[in-house]
Amino acid sequence: MFSISQDLYNYPEISGEEKQSSEKFKMILKEQGFHIHEFPEEELKYAFYAEYGKGHPMVGLLGEYDALPGLSQKGGSMVKEAVGASEPGHACGHNLIGTSAYASALAVKKYLEDTGKEGTVRFYGCPQEELLDGKVLMAKYHAFEGCDAGFSYHPWNANFPVYQGFLAMNNLKFHFTGISSHAGQAPGQGRSALDAVELANMGVNVMREHVISSARIHYVITNGGEAPNIVPKEASSWYYVRAPHRRDVNEITDRVLNCQKGAALMTDTTLSYEKVGGCYEILPNHVLFQLAHQNFHEMEMSPYTEEEKNLAKVLSMSLPEEQLKKDREVLGMETEGSYIHKETLSIEAAKSYPISGSSDIGDVSWLMPFSAIFTAAWPLGVNAHTWQSASASGSSLGQKGMLYAAKIMAGMAVDLMEKPEILREAQEEFRSRTEGNPYVSPLG
Amino acid sequence: MFSISQDLYNYPEISGEEKQSSEKFKMILKEQGFHIHEFPEEELKYAFYAEYGKGHPMVGLLGEYDALPGLSQKGGSMVKEAVGASEPGHACGHNLIGTSAYASALAVKKYLEDTGKEGTVRFYGCPQEELLDGKVLMAKYHAFEGCDAGFSYHPWNANFPVYQGFLAMNNLKFHFTGISSHAGQAPGQGRSALDAVELANMGVNVMREHVISSARIHYVITNGGEAPNIVPKEASSWYYVRAPHRRDVNEITDRVLNCQKGAALMTDTTLSYEKVGGCYEILPNHVLFQLAHQNFHEMEMSPYTEEEKNLAKVLSMSLPEEQLKKDREVLGMETEGSYIHKETLSIEAAKSYPISGSSDIGDVSWLMPFSAIFTAAWPLGVNAHTWQSASASGSSLGQKGMLYAAKIMAGMAVDLMEKPEILREAQEEFRSRTEGNPYVSPLG
Amino acid sequence: MFSISQDLYNYPEISGEEKQSSEKFKMILKEQGFHIHEFPEEELKYAFYAEYGKGHPMVGLLGEYDALPGLSQKGGSMVKEAVGASEPGHACGHNLIGTSAYASALAVKKYLEDTGKEGTVRFYGCPQEELLDGKVLMAKYHAFEGCDAGFSYHPWNANFPVYQGFLAMNNLKFHFTGISSHAGQAPGQGRSALDAVELANMGVNVMREHVISSARIHYVITNGGEAPNIVPKEASSWYYVRAPHRRDVNEITDRVLNCQKGAALMTDTTLSYEKVGGCYEILPNHVLFQLAHQNFHEMEMSPYTEEEKNLAKVLSMSLPEEQLKKDREVLGMETEGSYIHKETLSIEAAKSYPISGSSDIGDVSWLMPFSAIFTAAWPLGVNAHTWQSASASGSSLGQKGMLYAAKIMAGMAVDLMEKPEILREAQEEFRSRTEGNPYVSPLG
Amino acid sequence: MFSISQDLYNYPEISGEEKQSSEKFKMILKEQGFHIHEFPEEELKYAFYAEYGKGHPMVGLLGEYDALPGLSQKGGSMVKEAVGASEPGHACGHNLIGTSAYASALAVKKYLEDTGKEGTVRFYGCPQEELLDGKVLMAKYHAFEGCDAGFSYHPWNANFPVYQGFLAMNNLKFHFTGISSHAGQAPGQGRSALDAVELANMGVNVMREHVISSARIHYVITNGGEAPNIVPKEASSWYYVRAPHRRDVNEITDRVLNCQKGAALMTDTTLSYEKVGGCYEILPNHVLFQLAHQNFHEMEMSPYTEEEKNLAKVLSMSLPEEQLKKDREVLGMETEGSYIHKETLSIEAAKSYPISGSSDIGDVSWLMPFSAIFTAAWPLGVNAHTWQSASASGSSLGQKGMLYAAKIMAGMAVDLMEKPEILREAQEEFRSRTEGNPYVSPLG
Repeated sequence: MFSISQDLYNYPEISGEEKQSSEKFKMILKEQGFHIHEFPEEELKYAFYAEYGKGHPMVGLLGEYDALPGLSQKGGSMVKEAVGASEPGHACGHNLIGTSAYASALAVKKYLEDTGKEGTVRFYGCPQEELLDGKVLMAKYHAFEGCDAGFSYHPWNANFPVYQGFLAMNNLKFHFTGISSHAGQAPGQGRSALDAVELANMGVNVMREHVISSARIHYVITNGGEAPNIVPKEASSWYYVRAPHRRDVNEITDRVLNCQKGAALMTDTTLSYEKVGGCYEILPNHVLFQLAHQNFHEMEMSPYTEEEKNLAKVLSMSLPEEQLKKDREVLGMETEGSYIHKETLSIEAAKSYPISGSSDIGDVSWLMPFSAIFTAAWPLGVNAHTWQSASASGSSLGQKGMLYAAKIMAGMAVDLMEKPEILREAQEEFRSRTEGNPYVSPLG
Repeated sequence: MFSISQDLYNYPEISGEEKQSSEKFKMILKEQGFHIHEFPEEELKYAFYAEYGKGHPMVGLLGEYDALPGLSQKGGSMVKEAVGASEPGHACGHNLIGTSAYASALAVKKYLEDTGKEGTVRFYGCPQEELLDGKVLMAKYHAFEGCDAGFSYHPWNANFPVYQGFLAMNNLKFHFTGISSHAGQAPGQGRSALDAVELANMGVNVMREHVISSARIHYVITNGGEAPNIVPKEASSWYYVRAPHRRDVNEITDRVLNCQKGAALMTDTTLSYEKVGGCYEILPNHVLFQLAHQNFHEMEMSPYTEEEKNLAKVLSMSLPEEQLKKDREVLGMETEGSYIHKETLSIEAAKSYPISGSSDIGDVSWLMPFSAIFTAAWPLGVNAHTWQSASASGSSLGQKGMLYAAKIMAGMAVDLMEKPEILREAQEEFRSRTEGNPYVSPLG
Repeated sequence: MFSISQDLYNYPEISGEEKQSSEKFKMILKEQGFHIHEFPEEELKYAFYAEYGKGHPMVGLLGEYDALPGLSQKGGSMVKEAVGASEPGHACGHNLIGTSAYASALAVKKYLEDTGKEGTVRFYGCPQEELLDGKVLMAKYHAFEGCDAGFSYHPWNANFPVYQGFLAMNNLKFHFTGISSHAGQAPGQGRSALDAVELANMGVNVMREHVISSARIHYVITNGGEAPNIVPKEASSWYYVRAPHRRDVNEITDRVLNCQKGAALMTDTTLSYEKVGGCYEILPNHVLFQLAHQNFHEMEMSPYTEEEKNLAKVLSMSLPEEQLKKDREVLGMETEGSYIHKETLSIEAAKSYPISGSSDIGDVSWLMPFSAIFTAAWPLGVNAHTWQSASASGSSLGQKGMLYAAKIMAGMAVDLMEKPEILREAQEEFRSRTEGNPYVSPLG
Repeated sequence: MFSISQDLYNYPEISGEEKQSSEKFKMILKEQGFHIHEFPEEELKYAFYAEYGKGHPMVGLLGEYDALPGLSQKGGSMVKEAVGASEPGHACGHNLIGTSAYASALAVKKYLEDTGKEGTVRFYGCPQEELLDGKVLMAKYHAFEGCDAGFSYHPWNANFPVYQGFLAMNNLKFHFTGISSHAGQAPGQGRSALDAVELANMGVNVMREHVISSARIHYVITNGGEAPNIVPKEASSWYYVRAPHRRDVNEITDRVLNCQKGAALMTDTTLSYEKVGGCYEILPNHVLFQLAHQNFHEMEMSPYTEEEKNLAKVLSMSLPEEQLKKDREVLGMETEGSYIHKETLSIEAAKSYPISGSSDIGDVSWLMPFSAIFTAAWPLGVNAHTWQSASASGSSLGQKGMLYAAKIMAGMAVDLMEKPEILREAQEEFRSRTEGNPYVSPLG
């Protein structure tokens, strides 16, 4: 397993270019007797699923493998040290995600072989998580149909099953078209598209007071005109709208769109827009959450070596002191000398742990009973998308977190196969939560 | 004449309240044998016209008599000195306007009596010029129909007939309605009407670059909310839109309105608006302009006494030096020691003299061939709506300018009656300038 | 007791004008043998405290008695029904607050008499809570010094002791001065104070994204100029800045002030500002919170009559259904048919109950160990500052909540006198929470 | 001459890269016996002057030779037709400017040879006019010292000497630096540099009302952030500030800078800025203007062939009809069938002809008595920087305008050498206009 995650780490591929990484997984899964399902669609060329076993229950394990641009980092190094300048790197630890799902899938296969039970395990090869649309596209092409439950792992600086979290979001680009004119000679004849972008942004800023305070709206200006002496004919902005619940995202998106329309009206320009992407928040499944929590306790994290502890300490201490302090506070850790989370969060602490980014695993949670787990693969204080998270993801520290997660997910899968009533309850909960509120693709 | 203008000066009445002033004119005109025409409409209760003679040509003379709030000033005083604190005052010299038109009307009457010629002279009693809507309302009720030509006078600090000038304008009030909520507890449930006002204003400010640079758009916020802890349900702004030509005012008004609509869309509020008023710029009539210029030269201004010269000097010098300097520059005056304009501007200088306020005499110029004349009733450097202009308007300085104007207007009226070809030409020019571009009441 | 609260209800006096109400309390407390302490300061003319007993422990009970403008309402009425149009009314139930503290003070007096123990009870007559500065001013004049612990009551639609809550806040007024000019003729010479107000507001709106999301910043424009044709020389805005912690309010206030300063710089205007008021959030005291919770259970609310239940139902149902639903959700009430909260919230539910307004009782909590309690004096769904809360506050429904609160506060006071170790613990907690973070008057 | 202008046309070099073009002029001027003066400074590597004769009067002729990016066009073509896609082209006709000055210099040389008079002619090789800083840099290195008068030519669609015109300007870039943070997870920790750019722009838009209405302020946003999920740490804008007089540009620039500073204060970001460039308006010299006007009449434009007339017609008609109409109006042309300006504008018309772009020849006019002339090298309706102006500049149509200009400038130079009193008067006027208001380099 270690060599697989290390291979991925050493050949980082960014979202949409995961050719080698997906090929590698297909190859090794095929060798293990899994049946590979590919998608004919161009936009799903690096997506697939690999299936072992037959009939139900069918459990899905979500593997990811995309890296981040410009974050190349030598694995296990104690300092910021790129392998190749401006090369990509696994600073979000997706090398561990893919490998953990793979390891878990093999364990379930072994259980099915050993017991001869009916049941299927699917490894989902999920590209471009960082673009937040890989699984959304897969969902659009029905890739997740047929599964009875799904699990997913993400490396973190703490051990706990996710109850709820991630923000639902939309990703939009707005383009305004006005009338160009010489800004020195005939400004009165021009209609500035940049004016529209700026007024729309002001509208949104003013609106911040009047949305739920957990909403997040952020933008950049991607085209702000060519040169001052030309009234800008074209100008563009790029927005994310996020909120804890998709219904709020949709409502706020409508209002953001109204700000753009209002700005077009104000400035005598025309608006066009693209819905680039979007995703759901995680739909809680209390049954699977509890099952996960139980497996956290049943499985064991391998003990850390002195070397690993030292790496954790150095990485933690390379960060602003507040981050470490804050993490310890959130995790309820009192030991001063500790740089890595070893316990599992309590049910309550796990439930209220704030997870504020976005992920397309949210969409999967609206398509089947779903559970995501986080394990301590990174030292305390370390956030995703940093050289520290990259370094840890390329070290044995990360690999221990990954293997712990693989054991937990396999344990959960086996539990569902052994005790069908748990799966039934989980599905019942899923049905009741989604009733009258079915999944609608954020891509429209 | 002097006592009439002085009486008006001593009983200043603001726009919409010119009861005594209009009664006075009706009385003395009646005494002189003029036939009084009143309007049954409530909104024209202080408007009227008084007619003498029969048939055509019919010449109209526009009299005004409204004062300005809070500008009470002792006439002829060399210092700022109110008669009654926060009382109104004739700081725009409309006491001279009314009286000048009256004096001129009497002279024309005399000419008609003496010659026995056919012809009619009308004195128009025009209220609320300061609200810029008296003549607009009168026009709406067809008060100016039947006249062949019209003249009007305004006291100024220079002698010249007006060729073009005053800005056409619209006067609008915008009201937004949102949803109130407790700003501390539930801001997300509120929709702020004040947000809408502010965003609309920003839209207009951004638009300034993209209108003709002679346009003027200005606003105040008349309702900006009650208290900070309440998301404002109601908020309002008040706008003037001005430009040298009415067609531009209309176009820019549409765009200002779009800014308001855009802001309502952005903020999820609703918009209502009132078109409070509006007026036209002066439509040039070159024939009458030349006739006026000729009469400026044919008539004579009475010479100033030493006392008057001294008053002029003191009033001029009570102002920032630049104003005096600028006036001298604009008027091409080189004499250092002079504080009052004695010559008449040349044709070219008169044509290019900038007049940037607004006046409802503009509307009359779109309804008949029209000429406005300005004479030096105020010292150099003195602007309208100041205590200096009030003081001069209540002194013999103002009265001399007023009488000079009365002579010029009478001279012009007689010329039109003597030489019908001039009137024909003036009417021809009027027709050609308004062809395809007829008067449309700014009040809609 | 009922007649006292009813008397106050029937003579509502707004903040800063509580002459009769304060006189009444002084009179009846004097009659009961309390010693009255008044303040010589003009701004504290309706503040006082009344003391009974001697030595320590000294317990303070905070009484309030100010009403709200324009919210006159007939007590106990089932419909919106003013006693006097645009008269004030007790829509925040401060009549109950004053009376509850009074009743509680009498009970403690009786305990002291009966037992002959050493100890003192103080009734604090606290004016202008609605202005959020009565107790802040009292604190400035050291009114709260000497007390060992303090209690306060507020009518609500639920029964629980407050752990933490209310937002700390600052109340500021900003005034800009520019240069007036004629907006049509010489806009380039003007410097608009309104421009400054609007740009400062935009700066604040843009800043919303970059403050903690629990912060609340809201404003109105109190002077937005006189008339469109005059570039506004003067313009003003009025702001509240709120956040869960005073240190955040201070930091955000500095940034809001920078927005104003930046706007002055942008517009070539000058800024002056007034710090009108401000207050603290409630500093939790876990020891007193637990003591209060225990007393909620030891005391009993008198049972409701059918008439009262019916009033509650009608008032609840006069509101949008969501409010009732939301309240039931927050309070964990499942009974469909219930319109009034009868249980006491659990420790956990009380701790996490969101209280998002502001109150100057917060300041008192930073000056002594403090506990505030809320009881169900209003039906479910009813918010403060409504005709429904007024009606209930003037009915026996409100009085029952009030008496329940009086019993609880008296119980707590007696507990502190009986068990000095509890008081010691509460004081120890207070010291540790305020260490290095002493109270600084929001009024500077 | 034709082949020289054509050679330049065929090897267009953009501003800052005029290696071949400057070399060519140096070579042919050297061949003609001119002495070449180069500048050691790196930033003047394509600038030079070439001198013939000795002593005074010394007359300077300004040659330019830079082309425009992306405007490649086949000379004399009737359609938009690039020679090389995205190659530069002489769409501003600077090939004609350089050659005209050269031709004029040769004629003056011949006059000096023929008469044996004392006197000097200088050809100035002036690079990067399109960047508006070539002559500003040359002035900084004293390149224009020693000249008694200077002339310059620009191809246009009309024949007249320039009295005044071009807008003085400043060219500035503003850079803000804030604090980056994850916009979804920790927006409160970020300080957006883009917020600062947008607020500064709003400040400037609001300021538009309060500057002289002939001012022009325009901007683009050159860096508006990277991606929505990152609070932008860096953001930049690029501004031009223009006005008829340099003193206004300076004052408005200070205020624009205050808007930036105010925005930095509002947003807790820091500002840095670059003064990229700037130039003066043309300082009128009435003496030389009249001399130029006289020479327009003394010299003759070669008659156009049918082919040239046809090219003019086709180019004119390829444009929106209004442009042709407007040009005819401005030029007072009534002939419907005419597509090229043949007369010379009257003194009055030339004086009031609006020229609203900017040019670094303005700076030269503040360093010596100066006259610029425009001739009809482009058809009516054709503006600079279009394929039509490029095509004409590369055709015999352009060359005829160019030669006419060369004759006029040579005639003026000879006049100054023949009649020293004219030069004295021109210099006296120059002295009086610049007294107390000396040239200060816009580059600081």
